Amino acid sequence: MKFSYVCMALLLAGSARGTFAAEVSSPDGNIKVNFSVVEGRPTYEMSYKGKPVILPSTLGLELIGSTDLMDKFEEKNVTYSEFDETWQPVWGENKEIRNHYREMFVELAQPPHGRFMNIRFRVYDDGMGLRYEFPQQQYLDYFPVREEHTQFAMAGDHTAWWIAGDYDTQEYDYTESRLSEIRGLMKSAICSNASQTQFSPTGVQTSLQMKTDDGLYINIHEAALVNYSCMHLNLDDKNMVFESWLTPDAQGVKAYVQTPDHTPWRTVMVSDDARDMLASNLILNLNEPCAYEDTSWIKPVKYVGVWWEMIGGGKQWSYTYDLPSVKLDNLDYSKTKCHGEHPANTENVKRYIDFAAEHGFDQVLVEGWNVGWEDWFGKSKDYVFDFVTPYPDFDIDYLNEYAHSKGVRLMMHHETSGSVRNYERHMEAAYNLMDKYGYNAVKSGYVGNMIPRGEHHYGQWLNNHYLYAVTEAAKHKIMVNAHEAVRPTGLCRTYPNLIGNESARGTEYEAFAGNKPSHTTVLPFTRLQGGPMDYTPGIFEMDMKKINPNSAGHVNSTLARQLALYVTMYSPLQMAADIPENYNRFMDAFQFIKDVAVDWDESRYLEAEPGQYIVAARKAKGKDEWYVGCTAGEKGHTSDLKLDFLDKGRKYEAVIYADAKDAHYLDNPQAYTITRKTVTDKSRLKLAAAPGGGYAISIKPLDL
Amino acid sequence: MKFSYVCMALLLAGSARGTFAAEVSSPDGNIKVNFSVVEGRPTYEMSYKGKPVILPSTLGLELIGSTDLMDKFEEKNVTYSEFDETWQPVWGENKEIRNHYREMFVELAQPPHGRFMNIRFRVYDDGMGLRYEFPQQQYLDYFPVREEHTQFAMAGDHTAWWIAGDYDTQEYDYTESRLSEIRGLMKSAICSNASQTQFSPTGVQTSLQMKTDDGLYINIHEAALVNYSCMHLNLDDKNMVFESWLTPDAQGVKAYVQTPDHTPWRTVMVSDDARDMLASNLILNLNEPCAYEDTSWIKPVKYVGVWWEMIGGGKQWSYTYDLPSVKLDNLDYSKTKCHGEHPANTENVKRYIDFAAEHGFDQVLVEGWNVGWEDWFGKSKDYVFDFVTPYPDFDIDYLNEYAHSKGVRLMMHHETSGSVRNYERHMEAAYNLMDKYGYNAVKSGYVGNMIPRGEHHYGQWLNNHYLYAVTEAAKHKIMVNAHEAVRPTGLCRTYPNLIGNESARGTEYEAFAGNKPSHTTVLPFTRLQGGPMDYTPGIFEMDMKKINPNSAGHVNSTLARQLALYVTMYSPLQMAADIPENYNRFMDAFQFIKDVAVDWDESRYLEAEPGQYIVAARKAKGKDEWYVGCTAGEKGHTSDLKLDFLDKGRKYEAVIYADAKDAHYLDNPQAYTITRKTVTDKSRLKLAAAPGGGYAISIKPLDL
Repeated sequence: MKFSYVCMALLLAGSARGTFAAEVSSPDGNIKVNFSVVEGRPTYEMSYKGKPVILPSTLGLELIGSTDLMDKFEEKNVTYSEFDETWQPVWGENKEIRNHYREMFVELAQPPHGRFMNIRFRVYDDGMGLRYEFPQQQYLDYFPVREEHTQFAMAGDHTAWWIAGDYDTQEYDYTESRLSEIRGLMKSAICSNASQTQFSPTGVQTSLQMKTDDGLYINIHEAALVNYSCMHLNLDDKNMVFESWLTPDAQGVKAYVQTPDHTPWRTVMVSDDARDMLASNLILNLNEPCAYEDTSWIKPVKYVGVWWEMIGGGKQWSYTYDLPSVKLDNLDYSKTKCHGEHPANTENVKRYIDFAAEHGFDQVLVEGWNVGWEDWFGKSKDYVFDFVTPYPDFDIDYLNEYAHSKGVRLMMHHETSGSVRNYERHMEAAYNLMDKYGYNAVKSGYVGNMIPRGEHHYGQWLNNHYLYAVTEAAKHKIMVNAHEAVRPTGLCRTYPNLIGNESARGTEYEAFAGNKPSHTTVLPFTRLQGGPMDYTPGIFEMDMKKINPNSAGHVNSTLARQLALYVTMYSPLQMAADIPENYNRFMDAFQFIKDVAVDWDESRYLEAEPGQYIVAARKAKGKDEWYVGCTAGEKGHTSDLKLDFLDKGRKYEAVIYADAKDAHYLDNPQAYTITRKTVTDKSRLKLAAAPGGGYAISIKPLDL
Repeated sequence: MKFSYVCMALLLAGSARGTFAAEVSSPDGNIKVNFSVVEGRPTYEMSYKGKPVILPSTLGLELIGSTDLMDKFEEKNVTYSEFDETWQPVWGENKEIRNHYREMFVELAQPPHGRFMNIRFRVYDDGMGLRYEFPQQQYLDYFPVREEHTQFAMAGDHTAWWIAGDYDTQEYDYTESRLSEIRGLMKSAICSNASQTQFSPTGVQTSLQMKTDDGLYINIHEAALVNYSCMHLNLDDKNMVFESWLTPDAQGVKAYVQTPDHTPWRTVMVSDDARDMLASNLILNLNEPCAYEDTSWIKPVKYVGVWWEMIGGGKQWSYTYDLPSVKLDNLDYSKTKCHGEHPANTENVKRYIDFAAEHGFDQVLVEGWNVGWEDWFGKSKDYVFDFVTPYPDFDIDYLNEYAHSKGVRLMMHHETSGSVRNYERHMEAAYNLMDKYGYNAVKSGYVGNMIPRGEHHYGQWLNNHYLYAVTEAAKHKIMVNAHEAVRPTGLCRTYPNLIGNESARGTEYEAFAGNKPSHTTVLPFTRLQGGPMDYTPGIFEMDMKKINPNSAGHVNSTLARQLALYVTMYSPLQMAADIPENYNRFMDAFQFIKDVAVDWDESRYLEAEPGQYIVAARKAKGKDEWYVGCTAGEKGHTSDLKLDFLDKGRKYEAVIYADAKDAHYLDNPQAYTITRKTVTDKSRLKLAAAPGGGYAISIKPLDL
């Protein structure tokens, strides 16, 4: 299918927006994506049930040192196909995932330069993905990218839930505003971080959730970010056109490409039902199948840890105050005095192991176990940790043996301080140490500015590193939970030992400065689109003064909602983040955390509105148990739940952990009720969530 | 010893150049170094036999983000000491080295900022070293350096042998000129290189050899370059003041320092006898003692290799022309056709092994043995080599077995293409492969721009890497010969498995474009000050057309001088670089290369003048044999050699390989004579070197 310019001009004459040469629609016909070359520029548009989602938008890349891949294109060929399969994730929200799309593969030529570029569209019932493909060819082998110019032209001044575009942090609170208000609100949307680099007053991050005035939910993100830099969106707020804005390297180059290659998928999800945004598997489906033959060693994890004592409690990762400047090469901690505020000590960790064993947790995370924390941070220090040497008061041998004797594992912690060359140099030894002592999961961290200096957290260099850490870990059968790494884009389908990421404001910010009460009603629409988040819920004591007199922190959530997060924030890795003392005070509520599953056969989103509320129901893996969670924003939420997902006619006991009537996230967060009810698939439950509140329900069959 | 400003002012009044508060002289008293704080600035000067070497010059560092370490200093204390020891190098020009110096340790305070910096001077009979030391302190823990401002004020418009300052290459021909002429000659002093970054029209590299009008030889370099960036010199050519100019990183930062720390030594060698420059051990002495307990596995190496066929002969490192773009991840060479110009094949390598075995060489280097060479270069490619996978026509198993059966080893080759993260990721596997097959030496290479992109070959990041490669190799008992790495600064004392470096124009440039005939009369004064060079001499066919019809290359040397280089260019690693066919044509001359030692008990420099000639005599390690070499520049050289270094009264046979009378490097380079003579310690030899010529002598006792 080859169109001459004359022919195109004639076609274009027929429509103000252009007449498109090629079209593909979703299997259900609701979504249509059109493509054409308009005056030499690749152009697409997208609609949903006849409503515009993406107005005509151009595609292309600006290169460094050679002619851009922006214009002078001609269509060579368009191929259509359909794909439908059902696959089983190693872990997930559902035991089976259907991957059903229609594809339009557009082959383009740039005749003046003898070059070729293709664009592949895949259209699902809930959205579409497009990516650039660069076949091997004579006049395009290696090229540095100055910028990718993928446009997403919005059809109106939508409402968006956004965080500031930044090359180095995603740890911002979400702002809800019109697109036209982003510029004015940008300053107030930014808080300080150990490493941060904004680039534009209208720059935002993906996944970006929007809602149109006529009730369409639109989400822009990317899938399968491999060996490329992470995409942000920059808004032309006169025309409401978003354009891709890649993360640069130390020299300002945005990507290095070697043909044959392709970009990650650029995704647009759309529905008139907010729940479809949450239920979508589009991002996972656009990723490659699992790369590992044996995945038997990958297992969801529920864990506690030596962490909140430091984050919220003011204790230290470090061991001593005697070392203003640490050089690991010639360091002898035995000559230093412990400051006594180091919870990663043998006795305390043993206490956590006992707690984990008693309550059925799989693992105990211990942060601050290894030498170097005395000056780990903010100094552009290269050799900051060796990842293998424990502090003198952490008996690594004994503690692992003790944990194993109780059916528990320790979870490893590798803070890199952003010094990535150093981490890679020590990685093999670090993973070997884990093998030796029986660790099978590591929480890694990338706090602070990156080394190699000038590189950014979300650039191609680091994205390559994060995946390297995951694939190297796989050789040791180790699962990875990387904090401060790039936001996930569904790679956990291909590399399912990537069991978690942070990549957003987690619970720790409740101790630092507080998240907005609506935070957990937004995250599943945005951050969680790409993969699970190690959100670390389960905080029972909201007044941080209670564990640290110097703290002004407050957890902007009711206790009941803390339980709900184990259901609403899907993750195969769930922490009970509070200290054992606080759980001991509320053992009846803690029962829910003990009961709740971390892997699922089925998930349903019952009610959802970004920034307002999310209600999810999930059926535990291999069990007839269901768990329901509701998280609500500032206004609270009233639910009228139909339990029609239960087996017909079967009787269940529902245990409902709900906000008490006078509960409020600010001044009465620990007011909750626990109610037991017999329910069936015909039951309806009317439940109320307080402001910043929620509820959690466990539903178990009575006939077992 | 604390001077107030008032006191200093009074003292300064007494002298135009200032009166110095502290002084230290060399053990023989010829060199004096004075130090004082002048108007708050650390200042030193240096003289030799009463003649000025360094006029008053200031010391200091400009920092980023905090107050400079430039001024407002006060002297706190000065400590004097003397040190005298004799140590044994693992390999070297002499079996014993005396390290005898007087030290002046100046402790400075910067009272307005509560900070401390010390300067340590060590003065030898043949020069001095100074370095900055930064003790651990409250107000100076980590600091980035904008520039180090160490001045070297010259006392006149000296003659210098210099190459252009460059962050990425040292492969320039030397220019001989007055200091004042550098600016005008800079453009013509620069030739193209795969990676190069000049910084100033008066920027030059160290080691910089100079000569004053009154006959002093002065050399500026650095010693013990560890975890810091490499120093260049920038000339203020109005005042003839050199100042240190460090190599920046990707962000323009010149060094990152964590206290306690110190800079490398900045060295100034001086003598009125050029031979003292060559005989000096000052650079080695300023390095730390050997870091390894066991050094029994480190052995000098004489080798041949599959290399000149490509460099001079136009053959290929690559295997096929079928792959315009190589991705190692999914590559199958078995589907490609070998282009037939790949000398690293089993049959040809076997031929080199046979040749090495027949003529007593230790090793056979093979370049182009491993996959990836089809697009290795100039593309900023990250994953360019895996360092473990041989080409299909290189039977690594068989060839190593075959070599070992003949008492020969293969030498490994690791070209990194400057992609250093990739090399570090594969390093352990690469060294393990070497262990498996019995390789114990690797030639590594860093051709092209560096990755991490924006980093330079001589910056702190890469200097850290080069040393990492050496110390990791030591864990495998592997010796390293790194090409395109930073110029050596005596680190081979501490890490003697660093048996070679390139770091200058080697013989390969004879094939590319030719080195000046004087090149090898300069290198021992400059490049070799820091450590041995893998110069790869021994070219017998000077007309490159003879092995490659497409070549216009010519080796600017006579054949006799090629023999001499094995003596004049000291190295424990010596290649016979030409192809076996060319050696077979001149077996009588080749005998010298077979005979000459690669490790020595004693070395003497008999005659020397930079740019003109060098005559060296060396006594073979553990033997009573002496080898003499002479290399001469454009004018040739006539020697009158006293053999008084021979054992008194003993008779020796001298075999003299000399230029024939009509020899000339340009049009008659292969005209040589071989003469046998009986000599004693009373003998005098009158010998003539042709233009670009030289001679070589082996002297063996007749009474054995």
